[in-house]
Amino acid sequence: MRIRCAIVGGSGYTGGELLRILLAHQGAEVTVVTSRRFAGKGIGELFPYLQGLTEISFEDYSIDVIKRRAQVAFTAVPHQAAMPVVRELLDAGLKVIDLSADFRLRDPETYEAWYGEHSEKDIIKRAVYGLPEIYRGQIEGADLVANPGCYPTSSILPLFPLLKNGVVEPSGIVIDSKSGVSGAGRTSSMAFGFSEVNEGFKAYKVCEHRHTPEIEQELGVASKTRVTINFTPHLVPMTRGILTTSYSRLSKEVNTQEVVELLRDFYSQARFVRVLDPGHFPDCHFVRGSNFCDIGAKVCTRTNTLILVSAIDNLVKGASGQAVQNMNLMYGLPEEMGLTSPPLFP
Amino acid sequence: MRIRCAIVGGSGYTGGELLRILLAHQGAEVTVVTSRRFAGKGIGELFPYLQGLTEISFEDYSIDVIKRRAQVAFTAVPHQAAMPVVRELLDAGLKVIDLSADFRLRDPETYEAWYGEHSEKDIIKRAVYGLPEIYRGQIEGADLVANPGCYPTSSILPLFPLLKNGVVEPSGIVIDSKSGVSGAGRTSSMAFGFSEVNEGFKAYKVCEHRHTPEIEQELGVASKTRVTINFTPHLVPMTRGILTTSYSRLSKEVNTQEVVELLRDFYSQARFVRVLDPGHFPDCHFVRGSNFCDIGAKVCTRTNTLILVSAIDNLVKGASGQAVQNMNLMYGLPEEMGLTSPPLFP
Amino acid sequence: MRIRCAIVGGSGYTGGELLRILLAHQGAEVTVVTSRRFAGKGIGELFPYLQGLTEISFEDYSIDVIKRRAQVAFTAVPHQAAMPVVRELLDAGLKVIDLSADFRLRDPETYEAWYGEHSEKDIIKRAVYGLPEIYRGQIEGADLVANPGCYPTSSILPLFPLLKNGVVEPSGIVIDSKSGVSGAGRTSSMAFGFSEVNEGFKAYKVCEHRHTPEIEQELGVASKTRVTINFTPHLVPMTRGILTTSYSRLSKEVNTQEVVELLRDFYSQARFVRVLDPGHFPDCHFVRGSNFCDIGAKVCTRTNTLILVSAIDNLVKGASGQAVQNMNLMYGLPEEMGLTSPPLFP
Amino acid sequence: MRIRCAIVGGSGYTGGELLRILLAHQGAEVTVVTSRRFAGKGIGELFPYLQGLTEISFEDYSIDVIKRRAQVAFTAVPHQAAMPVVRELLDAGLKVIDLSADFRLRDPETYEAWYGEHSEKDIIKRAVYGLPEIYRGQIEGADLVANPGCYPTSSILPLFPLLKNGVVEPSGIVIDSKSGVSGAGRTSSMAFGFSEVNEGFKAYKVCEHRHTPEIEQELGVASKTRVTINFTPHLVPMTRGILTTSYSRLSKEVNTQEVVELLRDFYSQARFVRVLDPGHFPDCHFVRGSNFCDIGAKVCTRTNTLILVSAIDNLVKGASGQAVQNMNLMYGLPEEMGLTSPPLFP
Repeated sequence: MRIRCAIVGGSGYTGGELLRILLAHQGAEVTVVTSRRFAGKGIGELFPYLQGLTEISFEDYSIDVIKRRAQVAFTAVPHQAAMPVVRELLDAGLKVIDLSADFRLRDPETYEAWYGEHSEKDIIKRAVYGLPEIYRGQIEGADLVANPGCYPTSSILPLFPLLKNGVVEPSGIVIDSKSGVSGAGRTSSMAFGFSEVNEGFKAYKVCEHRHTPEIEQELGVASKTRVTINFTPHLVPMTRGILTTSYSRLSKEVNTQEVVELLRDFYSQARFVRVLDPGHFPDCHFVRGSNFCDIGAKVCTRTNTLILVSAIDNLVKGASGQAVQNMNLMYGLPEEMGLTSPPLFP
Repeated sequence: MRIRCAIVGGSGYTGGELLRILLAHQGAEVTVVTSRRFAGKGIGELFPYLQGLTEISFEDYSIDVIKRRAQVAFTAVPHQAAMPVVRELLDAGLKVIDLSADFRLRDPETYEAWYGEHSEKDIIKRAVYGLPEIYRGQIEGADLVANPGCYPTSSILPLFPLLKNGVVEPSGIVIDSKSGVSGAGRTSSMAFGFSEVNEGFKAYKVCEHRHTPEIEQELGVASKTRVTINFTPHLVPMTRGILTTSYSRLSKEVNTQEVVELLRDFYSQARFVRVLDPGHFPDCHFVRGSNFCDIGAKVCTRTNTLILVSAIDNLVKGASGQAVQNMNLMYGLPEEMGLTSPPLFP
Repeated sequence: MRIRCAIVGGSGYTGGELLRILLAHQGAEVTVVTSRRFAGKGIGELFPYLQGLTEISFEDYSIDVIKRRAQVAFTAVPHQAAMPVVRELLDAGLKVIDLSADFRLRDPETYEAWYGEHSEKDIIKRAVYGLPEIYRGQIEGADLVANPGCYPTSSILPLFPLLKNGVVEPSGIVIDSKSGVSGAGRTSSMAFGFSEVNEGFKAYKVCEHRHTPEIEQELGVASKTRVTINFTPHLVPMTRGILTTSYSRLSKEVNTQEVVELLRDFYSQARFVRVLDPGHFPDCHFVRGSNFCDIGAKVCTRTNTLILVSAIDNLVKGASGQAVQNMNLMYGLPEEMGLTSPPLFP
Repeated sequence: MRIRCAIVGGSGYTGGELLRILLAHQGAEVTVVTSRRFAGKGIGELFPYLQGLTEISFEDYSIDVIKRRAQVAFTAVPHQAAMPVVRELLDAGLKVIDLSADFRLRDPETYEAWYGEHSEKDIIKRAVYGLPEIYRGQIEGADLVANPGCYPTSSILPLFPLLKNGVVEPSGIVIDSKSGVSGAGRTSSMAFGFSEVNEGFKAYKVCEHRHTPEIEQELGVASKTRVTINFTPHLVPMTRGILTTSYSRLSKEVNTQEVVELLRDFYSQARFVRVLDPGHFPDCHFVRGSNFCDIGAKVCTRTNTLILVSAIDNLVKGASGQAVQNMNLMYGLPEEMGLTSPPLFP
């Protein structure tokens, strides 16, 4: 008996990626994909790469249909639009993995400061932050998982163990992230046109990107203190991938080898985290299409700084792959099911 | 019991791609990977994307080791270097799937005119041309399969059924192909440096590319007459993919719909050929990482010409995926085993 | 006294490119740039690369303003929108270089078959087709120049001399063109989003692209007979550049060297046409940002076919650079003025 | 009378870029280009984009020839190879603009710690650091100019005025730089092959890049104290451009507007520095092919940090354009001569 899955808001890249992963997943099947705009169209019309692989068509959102046909719903709609949908799905008895930001922040005030009003504050506390490498146990018992943002996933995984172990100071952390263009979604914005992006490189939303409080929240959990970070996202002329470089002051005397060992120890059960040998650093190229997070570390003794570099595929570990990993945990399936294809290189 | 596979000459892109596919293949296992240059190095050193997924290291080529540990060998060494290796492997009782050009041409003289001396002419006739959509039956019984070239795969699949059915004339065919850069292999040539290729586009080996006689051979089989083509390859600033546009004169009055139906009929059993609806044309984007060959057709009544457009991933259907497809057939496994991951888009 | 230039519809890539060229032109100055949508905005707001180089702002279109401030107008508005504007400008006494398709086709019926109704048929005959290498004399005396399309420029320049000299047959010509994405204009269409185009390659408008009759018209002039071609455009994941590969049957026995000489002879006065030595073929890389058209030739004796390959920058020789070249001729300036910057490589 | 220029080691990208700029420069002419490897070959053979624009060929290096034909030499050979050549050229009476690192560091010990032995220590003090926006006066009188590195140019220009004015603290500065691939030179290294770089993104030489001491030297000049920085370079899958994001702690209470004004004030005479309005940040796209350095600033009050973002074309302002700017100053020509072409976008 396969898990019956609904994808709510399935016409974007994360929807397409959920389909790509779930169509090859041996323990799950997609039974509903909703899209207001494309209701009635076949999956292959919007996603020609999936042509011939499924007979499913997009449908209008209907809680009755979803309730009847699915056990778990992946909500891939914009933040704020997600809230009422998530509530309705929970009320109908489904488990929900929400790919929006609506249930990631535990503090409603922080949410409202960065995103706007939150209409479903009472269910925020039911949500588990869906980073399995850190919250595996809670995810297994959850009925609402807030799937982490792409930048936060790439930022938290390398820093969490170091902060938790008091190796670096929680203040003054700089997180400089670089994302491929698919992070902007399947959009018709001129700003993400090929000729606008290709052969360009820029920073954006400097000091004001909404993923900042999400990263600060989790680093705060790790360090048991309030954390304020400098976070700057950049747009890379490539399609998939996020590389995050962070700088934090060492609070202990350690060398690179010891940092690598600490990370490996912390992630000894984490199949999707690969900690590289000293002297090696990750490349988005080597995680593409996979659920891996590769991490490299360097203790810079000249400046008493720990430099951590991580790479993920923003659409997989940064979104849909992680969502499926969460689903696997919620249903007692092997954590890696459907996520074992090696990365695609070159 | 999994098929035990050796990869001879495994340090290039086709070697890496064979590993990517075979490591996730449920009916096969890789037991030997040879590389003179990198013997002793772990797979992950050369292919960091495979780090953590295999414990195998590159070894020097040794027929004794291969004989002991493997049943089938994929030879991914340059043409002319492949010949003696293939013979030795066959003599040792292995089945061989040769990814070089050495056994693709049935006529030794043609081989020698385009490639140079052939030292193993007597085994040429044992080789089956490994295009499963056309030679499935022979491949099933073969012990030597000559895996087709990337350009020929993309050229023959769309044209073969039309020539076989006399819909187009066998003379005056123009085949204009465009390949991603990975087709040049994992090379240190300046000509394929990023800054040389990016934002450039060019034709190369105009009227003299070695895949020409291979295409002509198979189109000749289809049309039962000697075929001479104009074949021009181009270099596209993308990593994977070949798009081939061909022009042939119609010898019958047909419309696009009829051509599409003829193609679909011919490929009704071919899981990896997707013939698109009239008005739709393939994009390399939609086959990336997969074993699909997508085909679009257009009858141009203004000029009485049939225009066929096909797209493949040059490293998968154009090389390693097709090789695994051949292996599956040779060993009675389901033809698509290990090749069912959907394409990676975007 | 510099030529005073107006750019009508200046917010797209061709507008930006006209500005780039004219701001550095020593014999011209831009006095008006119109854009209904962006009237009031500074040039640098839309084109940040021009920030600090001009004080001009976009204005609403006003014939009175243009008449007062400019002598010549470049019309860079969509086809059919251009017609009435061109008439108004001519009536107001300006010379006009029209970058739309509206006055390129001498036969109104052909225009209407491919584009739609033509409301200003009476001035079609005043228009000179603005390919200076062929119509230099007429352009010098013209008050309306129809600036050629990008694909036609790249197709006509290599083929014209061969057809004119009867070296190739006018029937059965195949023109397979590949264009960078900027040819689609500065658009917010999802289809030209970075993630949609990058790492993709496709054919489009197979057998029905509107540049077809324009190419046929000029090849017909060359061969003094009606010409019908197969023309297929493709989209290359690069920003600038068109490479065109054409195939035509030889009607004389010639070798590559003779073809090269014929081309060089024909273009001996054409500063922007570079005919490459036999064995060399053009690359879009080597013309980027310049007004050059590079041409390579190969006689394929196996098939009795002449293969011509040409490369241009679609925004320069394929649009704005050619327009400035035409302006230079119309005003008796040196043909190359403002167009002498070498290509930008890499 | 044009300045007669020699380019020593002219076969790489900086050599090609010097040619591109100098061939269009109205006050200079290139009279010698040396290359041991390509002596005898025409410029157009190595740089097809320059075909038809110059009759010059590469020659073997000969001090006699250079002395006879040139007044000023641009040395574009690797560090350590440059030293003796620079001495010989100076001894022969030429002015020298050295594009290597050999004379950038004023302290020979620092040089030797990062690069290796320095054989010409006595002429280090004759060298002026060739950042015209800071050392204009000294450059005008220099006979040896050490042309800055690409990363240092992009790092020093935004930070220098802030440190000089005590707005930010000189300790704890993080400089996170991202460079296009042409920065690696015209190389045949596999690591810079298209398929290796495209769709990848990585950090490299973390905490150990040789441009670190050069940046620290100049920031130390600005702040009049010893400065130690965290500098991390990254490789962007684009050809040209460097974007540098720096983080420094504010030592004064200022807002973004005030920082922008301070920068504009400092660079009021600097034609090639464009300081963007608050809320705007640079993009490599908008400086490509030009000598501009665009700078954006943001005071992040949450963290009391100044974030500066700068963009240059690494081959122009980061190398050859800056070298020509230096030459102009050394010879009393207008500083911007030959450098006024607008950036190429898109």
